[in-house]
Amino acid sequence: MNTSTVQAFGTESPEADLKQLQIQRRDVTSNDVAIDILYCGVCHSDLHFARNDWGMTQYPVVPGHEIVGRVVEVGDGVSKYKIDDLVAVGCLVDSCRTCDNCKADLEQYCPEWVGTYGGFDKHLQTNTHGGYSQKIVVDEEFVLSVPDNLDQAGIAPVLCAGITTWSPLRYWNVDKNSKVAVVGLGGLGHMAIKLAHALGAHVTLFSRSTNKIDDAMALGADDVVISTDETQMEKVMGKFDLILDTVPYEHDFNPYMATLGTNGTLVVLGYLGPVESPLVTVPMIMGRKNLAGSLIGGIAETQELLDFCGKHNITSDVEVINMQDINTAYERMLKSDVKYRFVIDMKSLS
Amino acid sequence: MNTSTVQAFGTESPEADLKQLQIQRRDVTSNDVAIDILYCGVCHSDLHFARNDWGMTQYPVVPGHEIVGRVVEVGDGVSKYKIDDLVAVGCLVDSCRTCDNCKADLEQYCPEWVGTYGGFDKHLQTNTHGGYSQKIVVDEEFVLSVPDNLDQAGIAPVLCAGITTWSPLRYWNVDKNSKVAVVGLGGLGHMAIKLAHALGAHVTLFSRSTNKIDDAMALGADDVVISTDETQMEKVMGKFDLILDTVPYEHDFNPYMATLGTNGTLVVLGYLGPVESPLVTVPMIMGRKNLAGSLIGGIAETQELLDFCGKHNITSDVEVINMQDINTAYERMLKSDVKYRFVIDMKSLS
Repeated sequence: MNTSTVQAFGTESPEADLKQLQIQRRDVTSNDVAIDILYCGVCHSDLHFARNDWGMTQYPVVPGHEIVGRVVEVGDGVSKYKIDDLVAVGCLVDSCRTCDNCKADLEQYCPEWVGTYGGFDKHLQTNTHGGYSQKIVVDEEFVLSVPDNLDQAGIAPVLCAGITTWSPLRYWNVDKNSKVAVVGLGGLGHMAIKLAHALGAHVTLFSRSTNKIDDAMALGADDVVISTDETQMEKVMGKFDLILDTVPYEHDFNPYMATLGTNGTLVVLGYLGPVESPLVTVPMIMGRKNLAGSLIGGIAETQELLDFCGKHNITSDVEVINMQDINTAYERMLKSDVKYRFVIDMKSLS
Repeated sequence: MNTSTVQAFGTESPEADLKQLQIQRRDVTSNDVAIDILYCGVCHSDLHFARNDWGMTQYPVVPGHEIVGRVVEVGDGVSKYKIDDLVAVGCLVDSCRTCDNCKADLEQYCPEWVGTYGGFDKHLQTNTHGGYSQKIVVDEEFVLSVPDNLDQAGIAPVLCAGITTWSPLRYWNVDKNSKVAVVGLGGLGHMAIKLAHALGAHVTLFSRSTNKIDDAMALGADDVVISTDETQMEKVMGKFDLILDTVPYEHDFNPYMATLGTNGTLVVLGYLGPVESPLVTVPMIMGRKNLAGSLIGGIAETQELLDFCGKHNITSDVEVINMQDINTAYERMLKSDVKYRFVIDMKSLS
């Protein structure tokens, strides 16, 4: 199969900084779209993957799954996109397309889904490489259409941080009658507030400190509850229909479970691992409360979100950086020193 | 308020055996139904409450919340029942009737619901006393109608063990397309199998030993998976839509969570307390899986279940005992030495 060489940023070992390297992109096949990447968001998963925190990384790795770009070439079987279209690619570039999940537009739960990076590229028989690069070639079924009215850098994080919060808001039927709470104000949390607010819900941020109150209100929160203040926590006992927990490290779910109303659900979005704080079943049983997990969203749902963002003029709040700043950005991201997402301007890579 | 003296069985301390004692029942008020008790089921909660295992018992206590009897008197405002009707009383005898839960027919989640025993009787300003007695007086809104075609002893456990499994089967929309699993084969577990089977679901029992296979199949299970056999557990990975976990002691939920399919839910029904085995969020996130609790059911839902039992000729498998055998029955229940519920024949009490 013919390929072309593309400039990218990645790493060949867990300890090394990311640096410029070259990767091969396949020539477009019949159903492929070739995309010149304009912007790529920087997700916590990028860092975890680059550093092999999950023990599954194969090197070299080129991270990036919040991709916005322009179509520069299409295969002869492509019907959805044409040259110059503004498009996006999220966390998935393929799936089996035949399992129950794929048939139900839940490609994110397909056991054979192919990640935008770190997956297996059946065409090149190598690892897939992500959006920290000049160009990507993706099957049109996994390419999204981006509304023209939105800030192009700000839309990039919608592809991961956005859809990760949108999917549970939709699955648990949030609307103007819903009381939604968000735990944690980072990349996911700030999108959760914006999207829940745009759906008409009453939105509360749980935060450990008072210094995020103004920012949360500006993003669309109706209320901020300081989770370390027992009096404030007591006041919201039994209040919420849905809690989106975006905190990326281990923590105790019990105090938040107590703030769910009957039939309420706390959705874990940020922390993958064992929960050492013993979960207490009593309040769950006494109020039919749920603890759930949720992962990004399917392709159709991601398109729905992009269209919703276009209609409601919603993008992520971002700090645009050059590709060469990625290692500093990772260090700042680890300290939560970003409001609320770094996005790489890919013009900086040549 | 006028009362009459009624023979009952109860205890005045956590350490003492249950013995015959006398309690007062109020004369019927306008909305009350007086019921001569025919049968009363023996629930694990009865034993926990009698022995103050939950630290909330006020003595004397007269347990029993699986009550079947005949109407012997009605207040002048009663419209639903008349003398000689076959009726039942479950775990609730009152609630606030004005909160969102009560308005939604979810009296079991009303913060002010009044338990059939151990609750607060607003008429007599004392503890409520349960079904280990000759007679009970209950507001007609908390009295259920019992189909005439069913075994009267066998219907008693439907009021607690039955509704506790029925409510989640209905809330999570189990039907002929559902794959349901049941963990544990006791009072709750055997009703869960019967009811899920009658709803048309494919039913699997998880059991730790092979000696329950024949019984489970006879009750309506399609399959039994030995939960200590890793090969068998591997085969049902990702299979179930709903798991009803009836095990009354602490255990690890993770092996069962792994057998849920996308959007599947494990409902904890039997164990109230902290779960020391750390719950792992990864499979929950990777498949939008839920861990939930559920408590008995509302009055309307309990009536729905009784009607369903009448239509499908479903009752509990019971061992009928005399009231005087209750202390031996408690000891046998602690050893799971009953198929599957003791029911007291109240004729034995005089």
